[in-house]
Amino acid sequence: MDAMTFVLFGATGDLAKRKIFPAIYNLYVDRKLPESFQLIGLGRRKLTEAEFREQVAQSLRAFSRRPVTDEAAVRDFLERIGYSELNVNELSDYAKLAGRIEEREQRFTLPENRVFYMSVAPELFGSIVANLQESGLSRVSGWKRLVIEKPFGHDLESARALNASLAQAFEEKEIFRIDHYLGKPMVQNLEVFEYSNPVLQALWRNRYVANVQITAAETVGVESRAGYYDHSGAVRDMFQNHMLQMLMMLAMQLPKHSTAEEVGFKKRKVMEALRTLNREDVAANVVRGQYTAGHIGGKPVAGYAEEPGVNPGSTTDTYIAARLWIDDYFWSEVPFYIRTGKRMAAKSTRIVIEFKDPSDKFSRTNETTAPNLLTIDIGPEAGMTFRLNMKNPLKNGKIEPVQIQFDADEKNVPEAYETLIADMMRGDSTFFAHWDEVELAWQWVQPILNAFEGGELPLHTYSAGSNGPEAADRLLEQDGFHWWHDEPQEEAPAERKLAEPAGVQA
Amino acid sequence: MDAMTFVLFGATGDLAKRKIFPAIYNLYVDRKLPESFQLIGLGRRKLTEAEFREQVAQSLRAFSRRPVTDEAAVRDFLERIGYSELNVNELSDYAKLAGRIEEREQRFTLPENRVFYMSVAPELFGSIVANLQESGLSRVSGWKRLVIEKPFGHDLESARALNASLAQAFEEKEIFRIDHYLGKPMVQNLEVFEYSNPVLQALWRNRYVANVQITAAETVGVESRAGYYDHSGAVRDMFQNHMLQMLMMLAMQLPKHSTAEEVGFKKRKVMEALRTLNREDVAANVVRGQYTAGHIGGKPVAGYAEEPGVNPGSTTDTYIAARLWIDDYFWSEVPFYIRTGKRMAAKSTRIVIEFKDPSDKFSRTNETTAPNLLTIDIGPEAGMTFRLNMKNPLKNGKIEPVQIQFDADEKNVPEAYETLIADMMRGDSTFFAHWDEVELAWQWVQPILNAFEGGELPLHTYSAGSNGPEAADRLLEQDGFHWWHDEPQEEAPAERKLAEPAGVQA
Repeated sequence: MDAMTFVLFGATGDLAKRKIFPAIYNLYVDRKLPESFQLIGLGRRKLTEAEFREQVAQSLRAFSRRPVTDEAAVRDFLERIGYSELNVNELSDYAKLAGRIEEREQRFTLPENRVFYMSVAPELFGSIVANLQESGLSRVSGWKRLVIEKPFGHDLESARALNASLAQAFEEKEIFRIDHYLGKPMVQNLEVFEYSNPVLQALWRNRYVANVQITAAETVGVESRAGYYDHSGAVRDMFQNHMLQMLMMLAMQLPKHSTAEEVGFKKRKVMEALRTLNREDVAANVVRGQYTAGHIGGKPVAGYAEEPGVNPGSTTDTYIAARLWIDDYFWSEVPFYIRTGKRMAAKSTRIVIEFKDPSDKFSRTNETTAPNLLTIDIGPEAGMTFRLNMKNPLKNGKIEPVQIQFDADEKNVPEAYETLIADMMRGDSTFFAHWDEVELAWQWVQPILNAFEGGELPLHTYSAGSNGPEAADRLLEQDGFHWWHDEPQEEAPAERKLAEPAGVQA
Repeated sequence: MDAMTFVLFGATGDLAKRKIFPAIYNLYVDRKLPESFQLIGLGRRKLTEAEFREQVAQSLRAFSRRPVTDEAAVRDFLERIGYSELNVNELSDYAKLAGRIEEREQRFTLPENRVFYMSVAPELFGSIVANLQESGLSRVSGWKRLVIEKPFGHDLESARALNASLAQAFEEKEIFRIDHYLGKPMVQNLEVFEYSNPVLQALWRNRYVANVQITAAETVGVESRAGYYDHSGAVRDMFQNHMLQMLMMLAMQLPKHSTAEEVGFKKRKVMEALRTLNREDVAANVVRGQYTAGHIGGKPVAGYAEEPGVNPGSTTDTYIAARLWIDDYFWSEVPFYIRTGKRMAAKSTRIVIEFKDPSDKFSRTNETTAPNLLTIDIGPEAGMTFRLNMKNPLKNGKIEPVQIQFDADEKNVPEAYETLIADMMRGDSTFFAHWDEVELAWQWVQPILNAFEGGELPLHTYSAGSNGPEAADRLLEQDGFHWWHDEPQEEAPAERKLAEPAGVQA
């Protein structure tokens, strides 16, 4: 792997602590870092290098998926880590940083390969990029890469503006937009499942599929993120990015090769085939909701409007469900139902493919069978279940569903951030969100945002701990279907925090 | 259910003891016997009714799948059981029996519904049926049924002769030919799997299936059955009946209704589409073998020729493998490989459906995938496994097979004999071998018998505890395939005896 300098904006922030440093440390243990690797953490705070390294060491102990036991390894790892105080709006700070990086590159005759990782609030993206450009930091004889976290814009217009500002210093192929759902093993497997399994290739189409359900349900509420969340809502926080990315990964046609270009092309095709929701269609196809007080795991919890930091009378959506149609050869006439919500009955990220039941062809009067289901569990546990019907010898040959099930051994599975950072270091953007996808996703979502803001869509309520608003059930009942719900399952609060990085400050 | 009299020939024999009485007792416990039910056991031995009942009670204690704990229930059950001494060749004994049955029918004004169950050596079938006819026992104002155990003939000619002799007293719809493989839950499920699972309906055809493998492997040798087996061999003992019945159940097209008539019709279609093996084709498509000394479960065991009761220099087959083709719309060009043998590495009755790998379409140079497999385990444990490929996050995303698996809870599953006897009592012959099927199976097998007897086929050897002769591996290699072997697994000798009823004497 190429030698490189890894510049981390927001190095003292929450995401760096919980995700980025533990990920890089585990890559180090797995010998997936280049031989010559230096990370420079940047932050507003005044810290000595020793103090910063001690912070990093603490974050490894708290959040590394591997227990940190080898102190010599930690010391060796920390030697690759430096710290600089930096005011993101102060050009002279960038000049000092440039001097430091160049000095090292020259001393060790290293190529000018630089990663700029933006683990900062989105308001800062623009000025950081401008200053990288201005200071010469982003003019390199080697390669440069910009890694950027969500949110990528607040709506179509702001996303375009943000992208234009990045484009002043970085080409599209230099920009790595992290959508950590794309780093999850079972999401990465969606494409693999199909091309490596002729059985699934045969079934993956409208001839056999009745409908597809994509769910990302959380049991947590808004937590400490109300300031961000109350201006964002489920549609921006989850739907425009993670949910639509999962849809693309699931519905895309097989690329001939699993390269960033070809996968990106096939994903764009899905978005282009996604039937446009005009503003007047929104009410018939989208359900928005907000949780009220209820019970999670037997304990009473507050409603969204009572959460600290939420504006009184807030009409922010904590739940959204939508019916989508992909008008291409393979998926036309198959409804895709997508939903995501907070304070739901169970924590589960899951795709359910419900197969058609040609019961008219082989119906036998005294026997009813349940639909065949292929369930792909993305989290909290990875797994896959095929639900088939068979005659139960214990029940006088009554036909009933049985599950054939695979559960991944979760232990030692690299976290999404590890996979994604390693890919980025190798320059592989296959599992990153490309601008085309982001723009088309915003474009598709924009009429929904408009309808929300125009007050054209009722805000349904649902009790915390329920399966969401009843209106979402009616959405499927119209088509003769119902949601396949998860059985309730407890979630550990720490788990939750690891699973979804919160907005962080530099 | 109709009141009936159940006449059991061979009531003191091994099959009656191990299978028939325990099955009927469990039907009694499950309240699946008619309110008015009497069983009359017949045997050559002089026994009082009390002595016979005590024998039955002992057989229940030894062989019932349910522990026999309720002594009151056993007593009540035994009150339905009588015994008569009978010389099968003595017409006057039948007249006495008729008197006894008629006396009871008249006393309780019962309909003349009579089951004649032949748990006797096949040589006796003819004269018993003739005497049933002669004595008037088989002339009833209600219904009569003849239940007959394998072997049904020794070759095509003798099977036809046997059937002709039965036909003098019984119509085809009155004859219930037991093939206990058809009573096994997973064999009964073969048809159900397809019609109740659109996913399998889609895949169950030559477009997707590369080959089908049907295996019945035993680890036991010839045991105490050498007298019978040495004149029979694997081809008559297993292949002509159980193996071809499993093939029919698997390959038959879906009947509109699961009735004896429709299932029988679809099974006959399979046999009619089965490509005839002419005598000159046998050598290219059939492998016969005989086991030599070897090891089973780490213990040395004798070769077949050294087994007690086997003729020295015997050329009897203890193993047979064959390649078959079904020339119909759904299965043409899909080879079916069938094998059965004694003293194999593992005890396993299993169907493996190997799916085609369209690797030319989506091949990616650095990735190889294993074929998708659907494995249906019929015994010793019932189960089903789907083998798919996925990216293993633990192995840098290497693609490898994973199993999604279902195992039936074996406890409390009715045994094949229970299911079959209950069906017979209801008059449902769906899961019995109909004459068409039996005749067509003998017809297909006859050229193989001829080639064996004409010495046109080498007798390969294989070590006890191996996976059979190497020649059987080459049979598949010619087509670019290989056998999917079971992992070795210990078998309990008692289990084995229960699983396969031996030839018994009246």
